[in-house]
Amino acid sequence: MSSRTPALNLKTINPLILDVHYAVRGELAIKADKYTQQLANPQLKSGSNTNNVETLNNEVEELPFKHVVTANIGNPQQKGLNQKPLTYWRQIISLLEYPQLFQDSDKKELISKIYPSDVIERAKTLYEEIGSVGAYTHSKGVLAIRKRVAKFIEERDGYPADPESIYLTAGASAGVSSILSIALQEGDGCLIPIPQYPLYTATLAYLNAKPLPYYLSESQDWSMDHETLLKAVSEAKKNGTPVKALVIINPGNPTGACLSKEAMEQVIQLCYEEGIVLMADEVYQTNIYDPSHRPFHSFKKILKSMPENISNSVELVSFHSISKGVSGECGRRGGYYECVNISNEVMEQVYKMASVTLCPPVSGQIGVDLMVSPPVKGSESYELWKKETDLIHNNLKERSYLMAEHFNKLNGISCNPAEGAMYLFPKIDMPKKAIEEAKKRGKEPDVMYALDLLDATGICAVAGSGFGQEPGTYHIRVTALCPETKEFIGGFEKFHNEFMEKYKD
Amino acid sequence: MSSRTPALNLKTINPLILDVHYAVRGELAIKADKYTQQLANPQLKSGSNTNNVETLNNEVEELPFKHVVTANIGNPQQKGLNQKPLTYWRQIISLLEYPQLFQDSDKKELISKIYPSDVIERAKTLYEEIGSVGAYTHSKGVLAIRKRVAKFIEERDGYPADPESIYLTAGASAGVSSILSIALQEGDGCLIPIPQYPLYTATLAYLNAKPLPYYLSESQDWSMDHETLLKAVSEAKKNGTPVKALVIINPGNPTGACLSKEAMEQVIQLCYEEGIVLMADEVYQTNIYDPSHRPFHSFKKILKSMPENISNSVELVSFHSISKGVSGECGRRGGYYECVNISNEVMEQVYKMASVTLCPPVSGQIGVDLMVSPPVKGSESYELWKKETDLIHNNLKERSYLMAEHFNKLNGISCNPAEGAMYLFPKIDMPKKAIEEAKKRGKEPDVMYALDLLDATGICAVAGSGFGQEPGTYHIRVTALCPETKEFIGGFEKFHNEFMEKYKD
Repeated sequence: MSSRTPALNLKTINPLILDVHYAVRGELAIKADKYTQQLANPQLKSGSNTNNVETLNNEVEELPFKHVVTANIGNPQQKGLNQKPLTYWRQIISLLEYPQLFQDSDKKELISKIYPSDVIERAKTLYEEIGSVGAYTHSKGVLAIRKRVAKFIEERDGYPADPESIYLTAGASAGVSSILSIALQEGDGCLIPIPQYPLYTATLAYLNAKPLPYYLSESQDWSMDHETLLKAVSEAKKNGTPVKALVIINPGNPTGACLSKEAMEQVIQLCYEEGIVLMADEVYQTNIYDPSHRPFHSFKKILKSMPENISNSVELVSFHSISKGVSGECGRRGGYYECVNISNEVMEQVYKMASVTLCPPVSGQIGVDLMVSPPVKGSESYELWKKETDLIHNNLKERSYLMAEHFNKLNGISCNPAEGAMYLFPKIDMPKKAIEEAKKRGKEPDVMYALDLLDATGICAVAGSGFGQEPGTYHIRVTALCPETKEFIGGFEKFHNEFMEKYKD
Repeated sequence: MSSRTPALNLKTINPLILDVHYAVRGELAIKADKYTQQLANPQLKSGSNTNNVETLNNEVEELPFKHVVTANIGNPQQKGLNQKPLTYWRQIISLLEYPQLFQDSDKKELISKIYPSDVIERAKTLYEEIGSVGAYTHSKGVLAIRKRVAKFIEERDGYPADPESIYLTAGASAGVSSILSIALQEGDGCLIPIPQYPLYTATLAYLNAKPLPYYLSESQDWSMDHETLLKAVSEAKKNGTPVKALVIINPGNPTGACLSKEAMEQVIQLCYEEGIVLMADEVYQTNIYDPSHRPFHSFKKILKSMPENISNSVELVSFHSISKGVSGECGRRGGYYECVNISNEVMEQVYKMASVTLCPPVSGQIGVDLMVSPPVKGSESYELWKKETDLIHNNLKERSYLMAEHFNKLNGISCNPAEGAMYLFPKIDMPKKAIEEAKKRGKEPDVMYALDLLDATGICAVAGSGFGQEPGTYHIRVTALCPETKEFIGGFEKFHNEFMEKYKD
């Protein structure tokens, strides 16, 4: 490399980029990747370099674990977790990828021995509607799919939905970042829950908008406390920050809490009074553990059930995704958002910005279609689909309960059981000596805890500081996706007890 | 809707959004969509509304054409154009979507009657490398695929490539917007060709960066004129605008021009001297009509062939895509960029920003893999692949030549033949009276021309003003993708002659 100063360096690039933080895939994930590679290629530890694979340093001894347990990311289908994709989905998409399978006379007969007839029929219908999955679609997404999304919303909520106000996206993240980047001016305030999914702080940092944190109440099962929210609003106003938007994640990530109808009404009332746009991240809406006790209500439904002056004016954008739920199709990148009460002039801007990115991935659009219209009862594919989705629901729920129960048995940990989503966010009562040690290492105490946990057990969990937490409290986020829950618990328990012992007063 | 002022209106949203323009999918595309819907559902013209489909007004008479000819977007596989997807691609992806096809003993045998054995083998290998296509991958994309991209680049250029500097993306657009948003500070200057693909002006407007236009030389086959480029640089410096980046589209969109090696060396020299980052949009690199006369050279190759002080310091990002070339898989959203000579500290920021968007669509990543490593000569799938890709190359070339030839026969049109890409950008000698009429209608003259063309013939072409053009000149961009080239030419000729007659002096 020459000694000429590069045109791009940390002083010359977009300074807002430097303020972006995103813990879920940071240092810890990089280290876990290295361990995974090392376990797959044991010769790597000798430092035998290839050009292509980053190697650990030569000092590394054999690892004290056999595999990396990826409890850091809500990625159900990844290796090691292996949540089985829904057969119905994959059958239909495989046909759409290679339509000759149902078009060519010499293939049709063979295919009918493999694929159920309702799958073949549905693939044909989708093919007529979409055409080739290799073509750009409308920038909003395929109209026929948006119509079925509208129908899904109508049936879920009991209120009409307009396909022209529904945009298909490359996952919920793409939708969130697009809408926030339109809605927020530099310096605008955006209320976000703490703890939160770090996409929000990352996006706000990039937009030079102000995150206005409102703390969720850990002592009350991570519920929203309306007084706290009001305080955050008045605080912002006192500081001259316009409160433009309010983000709510329901069911919560990382908390797993589901909002009550009453809490939602209060929030909407506040948005009405203060002229705040409501951003409802509802990607975990089907991941509800006990719907009879704590069902999911969409913000659209609650909004539309309120008096007309409110229901026809509060601006709401609701986000959904195929990455979570029972499909877990993260890699396909599919989702949608519905805009409610957004003015036409702003909707035109939303359309323009969507058109610059051409169109969402067609495979993700098909995923959205399959999510909003699963096989109907009585159809050939229904029983298998039901069996597969029930298993996924039950697994998540059982693991989540089991893990929470065990966390609460350990000294120095307390954990609110989750009501939904796919995470737990246990609190670590961090010993003083551990906090001092972390300081010496130049790390947040919970980051040190998570890194040590990974080094000792191969368990990959994200430190609470990546999501935000009350100052002086420490957490980690773990997913409830690991099939070997007991192995996870055993490894975790051993590490935690040793950690507490090591740093005890 | 209540009378309460909406929180989101044109005064309160992000003001930079208002400055974004994107002609390719603007008014013209919306009108063409309506015509397509009207032709598919003739009852629409009576104004019988459905909630879901926008209707034309009641006055609309039967349309003077039978179908809409979509010559506005480089979308080879769309309905009406129907470029056939490559069989090899679709076979492999269909297997990866439903791996039971090659895993389950009861399906394997049937499948072996449909799929060539090399396809099945490759799908198995990819499955081992990737796992489920429904899982998030590494934020940079699957390592095994990035390694094959590096190999492709090495074989193309004769210089090494590092998989860690290669990022898979959701198409080239996503990569361009991500890199520009990192590289540019507010107020930074970015040299862009005029005419250009409007993604660049749209992205720069959003970033509040300054587009620094350099005009391509229409009288010299749309070549880059170095003096013009130098003038744009010194002009910017005189105005106190830091010249941070230079965008080059090669082969050109919308011009179809391919750069000579000498022009490229001059550009690189300039970047070296001025400390400018080079952004090479090389998405049409395989769409070359006459490689013996005007071959494609990558900027990476030319850069690496230059003296060491230059080759090891000029910062280059090169973009590629599966949407163009012979694959034309736009809807899959796949591409990559390679970063050359970018400092490690900046590469860390690139990685961080990629991780916020989680990962590119896996289906698009697989597309990149198939693009960079097609079936090898002698393999079972090779002959069909060769036949299909040859046909696509030949069709594009023949149509492009034929269309250019015909344009040049018409009065008041001149058209540089294209050397590559998939567009033509003919110049319309706009009659004064047409310019006056356009003024009355509040439109750019070429926008009026394109809208009238659509109304009269169903041919959808984008006005040159969407791409930029020398003041006082008027163009349209048409793709060379329409199978009914002669029908296109006939309809166009009739409209154009009538237009010229109508507005003659």
